Amino acid sequence: MKILITNDDGWEAKGIRVLIRLMKQLGQVTVIAPDGARSGQSNAISVGIPLFMEKMPAIEGLEDVDLYITNGTPSDCIKLAVNTIFKEQFPDLLVSGINHGSNAAINVIYSGTMGACLVAAEQGIPAIGFSLCDHHLDADFSFFEPYIIGLTKKILARPHQYGLCYNINAPIGEIKGVRITRQCKGNWADEFPSYKDADGNTRYLLTGHFNNREPEAQDTDEWALANGYIAVTPTTIDITEYNWKDLTNIGSE
Amino acid sequence: MKILITNDDGWEAKGIRVLIRLMKQLGQVTVIAPDGARSGQSNAISVGIPLFMEKMPAIEGLEDVDLYITNGTPSDCIKLAVNTIFKEQFPDLLVSGINHGSNAAINVIYSGTMGACLVAAEQGIPAIGFSLCDHHLDADFSFFEPYIIGLTKKILARPHQYGLCYNINAPIGEIKGVRITRQCKGNWADEFPSYKDADGNTRYLLTGHFNNREPEAQDTDEWALANGYIAVTPTTIDITEYNWKDLTNIGSE
Repeated sequence: MKILITNDDGWEAKGIRVLIRLMKQLGQVTVIAPDGARSGQSNAISVGIPLFMEKMPAIEGLEDVDLYITNGTPSDCIKLAVNTIFKEQFPDLLVSGINHGSNAAINVIYSGTMGACLVAAEQGIPAIGFSLCDHHLDADFSFFEPYIIGLTKKILARPHQYGLCYNINAPIGEIKGVRITRQCKGNWADEFPSYKDADGNTRYLLTGHFNNREPEAQDTDEWALANGYIAVTPTTIDITEYNWKDLTNIGSE
Repeated sequence: MKILITNDDGWEAKGIRVLIRLMKQLGQVTVIAPDGARSGQSNAISVGIPLFMEKMPAIEGLEDVDLYITNGTPSDCIKLAVNTIFKEQFPDLLVSGINHGSNAAINVIYSGTMGACLVAAEQGIPAIGFSLCDHHLDADFSFFEPYIIGLTKKILARPHQYGLCYNINAPIGEIKGVRITRQCKGNWADEFPSYKDADGNTRYLLTGHFNNREPEAQDTDEWALANGYIAVTPTTIDITEYNWKDLTNIGSE
């Protein structure tokens, strides 16, 4: 099995190194990752920007893994991969991450990790994004690790559905089990406080907190994570709202 | 009515000027737009990058419109707006565009125009993205214009549903009518051909063509556009794939 790996924290992040080591158990691994952090890049693509893709020397202990880095986004990584190395035959699987930080709830639409999965799903490639709810550089992936191969095997054993991928998030610390979940409704608030820079100019820097709009619901990714479970959310590239039937008055011939 | 306007082609684009002029008929307009082109920025947000937001002099003929520009993305524009000017009371409507180029089918997930709409929908603000299938700087919006106010009024007359926004695309030239559509299945191909730069380095530049995976289906945005209709696609921030029922074997207690 040919496995493609990317992330949005950059090729040197701890999370992607853990994922490479694990995926080697399942097949032949190729990595194409950004040359540095690309957090919050969603499905951004580099329009009009020349990209490089450079093959790197083997990483110690990972000598049989092909590693490429690029100045592009996570979405660019997948597009580069399927148009170069995998042009003749697509990989059997794309795994993205392990992200340092949650991609649950509305975070999924801002996530470069999941952006890469959506591009793979667009191309018909099975894709799984893994994220741990700890954004620290030295995050501890050890509780999450024992679940990753098993979840990947279970997903690959299912019939593949075009446009589908999986958003898998894990809580910090000990894990009680795995829940199939949906994306929790909620919004970010207080995101761009102003401050004065060294020259006295008003500037704005992204921060904020998540406001859960359905804290009582027990089928959401946020509930699972808050209660010690891994959240597996099936995710689609089709963002049509299908509750559209009463919209017919808007159309006209 | 307070109307917020943004786009991803930058504040100087022809499309946003058309939209500002039209929306003045419906209420008090505030514009926050990127200081230059941000095409393909999807829901990218500026992590760790100080943003400015500068009030610009009034545009001739648009003296009663407040205009701000920023070095952020379209998603940043909405976040800045709701955390500064509209902190006390959110706008009644966000309109984004008019984009120079199609945001139909899979393009929606890469679109900065629609990215802004998704951020507004996250905050509970009604949002509509307008796009014309012509990426030229001097694109002709005149056939689309007569539909924009009418469609906006019809959408605002409906009960608001949290998380919902509208992706409205128009074909080039004469328009036969309006269709309610869904996002067409399809993928981009041949996207990153390589070339040698002036120094002989191999580089990759984004291009490609869209591969429609369901050309026979008549309820898609691509079909409507190819047949001379405006495509109105209801669009959601919830990208859960709800055909998940047979996934229960993946979960565990």
